[in-house]
Amino acid sequence: MRYFLHLAYDGTHYRGWQIQPGQPTVQAEVDRCLTQILRRPTYCVGSGRTDTGVHASHQVAHFDADLPDTLTLDLLLYRLRRALPADIGALRLHPVADDAHARFSAEERTYDYFVATPVPDPFRRDHALYLDRTPDVAAMNEAAATMIGQFDFTSFSKVKGGENHYVCYLYEAAWHPAPGGLVFRIRANRFVRGMVRLVVGTLLDVGRGRMTPREFQELLWACRRVDASGAAPARGLFLSRVEYEPGIVPEPA
Amino acid sequence: MRYFLHLAYDGTHYRGWQIQPGQPTVQAEVDRCLTQILRRPTYCVGSGRTDTGVHASHQVAHFDADLPDTLTLDLLLYRLRRALPADIGALRLHPVADDAHARFSAEERTYDYFVATPVPDPFRRDHALYLDRTPDVAAMNEAAATMIGQFDFTSFSKVKGGENHYVCYLYEAAWHPAPGGLVFRIRANRFVRGMVRLVVGTLLDVGRGRMTPREFQELLWACRRVDASGAAPARGLFLSRVEYEPGIVPEPA
Repeated sequence: MRYFLHLAYDGTHYRGWQIQPGQPTVQAEVDRCLTQILRRPTYCVGSGRTDTGVHASHQVAHFDADLPDTLTLDLLLYRLRRALPADIGALRLHPVADDAHARFSAEERTYDYFVATPVPDPFRRDHALYLDRTPDVAAMNEAAATMIGQFDFTSFSKVKGGENHYVCYLYEAAWHPAPGGLVFRIRANRFVRGMVRLVVGTLLDVGRGRMTPREFQELLWACRRVDASGAAPARGLFLSRVEYEPGIVPEPA
Repeated sequence: MRYFLHLAYDGTHYRGWQIQPGQPTVQAEVDRCLTQILRRPTYCVGSGRTDTGVHASHQVAHFDADLPDTLTLDLLLYRLRRALPADIGALRLHPVADDAHARFSAEERTYDYFVATPVPDPFRRDHALYLDRTPDVAAMNEAAATMIGQFDFTSFSKVKGGENHYVCYLYEAAWHPAPGGLVFRIRANRFVRGMVRLVVGTLLDVGRGRMTPREFQELLWACRRVDASGAAPARGLFLSRVEYEPGIVPEPA
């Protein structure tokens, strides 16, 4: 039987999602807890990787298991919550069809990037970028809007991303007011590696007046990695929603 | 000239507000930054102490200083924000009358205690108590309501609190739904040491069915420290509002 496990995690102390030998990763912790509770080696597959220090308010992973009769789903979720470290939370657990896949069945992914400004927020110091001067939101949104639709995001990719191609379809990319600051929400069918932090870093340069929205658009069209700004720090970035094909994830009870 | 400095801080890594030789405290950090920016020894006086590990979303301190002509209030606040560690945030700074006092002019204090339940929240693991089973809110509120008004809180005080008396006037004491769980809000003219965490710990025993609301009331009336439950952990507790006599704190611009 295949299950979807919905997770949230604070990425501060992890080298990202993906298992790497000898490194603390979120996937390694989840696999360790599943293996311990199910008493057989169990491995989960995530909807996608998150990089070192990046958080998730919603990440999805699937795993295959034969639950013993004595282990209900509720009990498994309860035990997972007790076994996982406090910086990884198990939100929800449900069975799926055998061919449902946490990565390949995902249709859309949403990332949120939080900025605390102009008042510092000591409770979000690891979960937001602090800017003591508020950037120009109108200019950032003018630039962000140029990304909506289908584009090649080579300009906003890591040089050694290892992707086959850099074309993404963006449904949403805009800054919004949020408590204590701003949030940039970006939603697409897929993302290339490092893309959101490079987009945010470059948009913040627009917001500081160092680049015009028109120059941002020309950068996107140029498909050249070298001209983008530096990546925004990982601590503000959250994988916030993974959407699946209809019928895979049941409505919450 | 006297000034009020409004602060927020994450208390996780501090031995409370009050200066103690050789210990990291919030007051010591604020004094160090004020002294560094104003270039003369400067000491602040808080509205009250918070204990080891307790947070503040709103704390107020006063200090006396003669600002040089070149140092505007806005610039002092900007420099304070840059100088303070990331777990202490300067919210606001304004002049007050010479006889305004952060502690003695305060008329009301509010504390909030956060509980994450039943889903763990990895982003609030240091800022909320996690309970995997949701307590009985109706029973806790029936018990909490018995504290409204003027009572001797000896039953909910630390044995060696050092107070002159234990009488407090409570205006508000109730559990409310909050995102991802519950919050207990308690508002009074004053609090005795350790009181909120002892009240919360005992109310949670009511919420778990280990004590009835009537037994809670009898405990309050008994004025005996020994019978209360253990204190709830510091990480869920926030000093959340300090209210002053009218005219002391100007409306925000």
